Amino acid sequence: MSWLPSLITATPEEGYELAIKLSRMAVKKTQPDDDARGRMRGDYANNADSLTMVSQVVATNFQTVAQANNFWRG
Amino acid sequence: MSWLPSLITATPEEGYELAIKLSRMAVKKTQPDDDARGRMRGDYANNADSLTMVSQVVATNFQTVAQANNFWRG
Amino acid sequence: MSWLPSLITATPEEGYELAIKLSRMAVKKTQPDDDARGRMRGDYANNADSLTMVSQVVATNFQTVAQANNFWRG
Amino acid sequence: MSWLPSLITATPEEGYELAIKLSRMAVKKTQPDDDARGRMRGDYANNADSLTMVSQVVATNFQTVAQANNFWRG
Amino acid sequence: MSWLPSLITATPEEGYELAIKLSRMAVKKTQPDDDARGRMRGDYANNADSLTMVSQVVATNFQTVAQANNFWRG
Amino acid sequence: MSWLPSLITATPEEGYELAIKLSRMAVKKTQPDDDARGRMRGDYANNADSLTMVSQVVATNFQTVAQANNFWRG
Repeated sequence: MSWLPSLITATPEEGYELAIKLSRMAVKKTQPDDDARGRMRGDYANNADSLTMVSQVVATNFQTVAQANNFWRG
Repeated sequence: MSWLPSLITATPEEGYELAIKLSRMAVKKTQPDDDARGRMRGDYANNADSLTMVSQVVATNFQTVAQANNFWRG
Repeated sequence: MSWLPSLITATPEEGYELAIKLSRMAVKKTQPDDDARGRMRGDYANNADSLTMVSQVVATNFQTVAQANNFWRG
Repeated sequence: MSWLPSLITATPEEGYELAIKLSRMAVKKTQPDDDARGRMRGDYANNADSLTMVSQVVATNFQTVAQANNFWRG
Repeated sequence: MSWLPSLITATPEEGYELAIKLSRMAVKKTQPDDDARGRMRGDYANNADSLTMVSQVVATNFQTVAQANNFWRG
Repeated sequence: MSWLPSLITATPEEGYELAIKLSRMAVKKTQPDDDARGRMRGDYANNADSLTMVSQVVATNFQTVAQANNFWRG
């Protein structure tokens, strides 16, 4: 089973969750070691700029997912 | 009730508010602890570059919301 | 009266001004204290990278405004 | 005379020049003092990351200008 | 054989892999020395902000690939 | 002869090369001194984050070039 079978989601909220998943996957593929990623969690989860940077990635991916879903206009 | 039932808003100003909400939600989902986020508020609210970074995220999300609403042209 | 009644402007130059307004509004909504923002002005107005970051936000918002106006092609 | 009468240019190269102009104008409007901007020139013109950041802004503005001109396809 | 014969992929997941490839290729073309790149791996693979920056590049490239594939809607 | 006669390229790979050229040109136009740029090469070519930033610019320009070429779908 693919981790990304489709960009289509039923709702905007599910689309947002997918955007988060897309954002995290690039990190996971660059640093596949779960422990290494876990050790860094405190670094970004307690730093305002780090969190803003994360939010920027999610925003970019959410734009892609929203376009894919015709912005759930229907 | 979903926190994001739709990307459609009545006005550009409401769309801008939604863009802010989208920007904050990624932070909240990455750091769910309200107190931890509260402690960081002074860090970014009093730092010019941090505020510019926040504005960049809002700009990206606003583009998505504006596209979803056909730029409120109608 | 809304601060953002429309994304439509008569000219590209007015659209650029609107992009600047959009960029500043996210800062204002994140740090509503006028004095606090005023104190930071010297920080970013005299730092090359800070100014480039501001220009990046304006560029993103200008893209949105330009799209809304069909690039003032008509 | 407006500094930005139109986004339409005759050639891609002129469009690229316009993207640079758009990138600089946001800086100028944020720091209108010519001397202050002049003093910062050495800071960014001799710093690799600063130059990359400038190039990022130009890339964003060039995308807008290129879209406005239908990518000069005709 | 080109390293980039096409932007079209069979699935979203393959499109995501292509986005990662596109992201890495710009690094490789700027620093062609394999050893030099290898020495830097620990720097970014163990730094939260560095990984977020990588994820931002992948997000931008994935948007391009997704658009090329009409978001695999068919 | 213009350095940018067209955004149209025969292949995706040539489009990627053009995106790199576009990315470098903004640097060159901001710092026209070849020696000064040469001196900075070691700074960014051996710094992981600097290389990621370069890759971000290329990704943005590649999106523009890919759109111009209708993603070489034909």
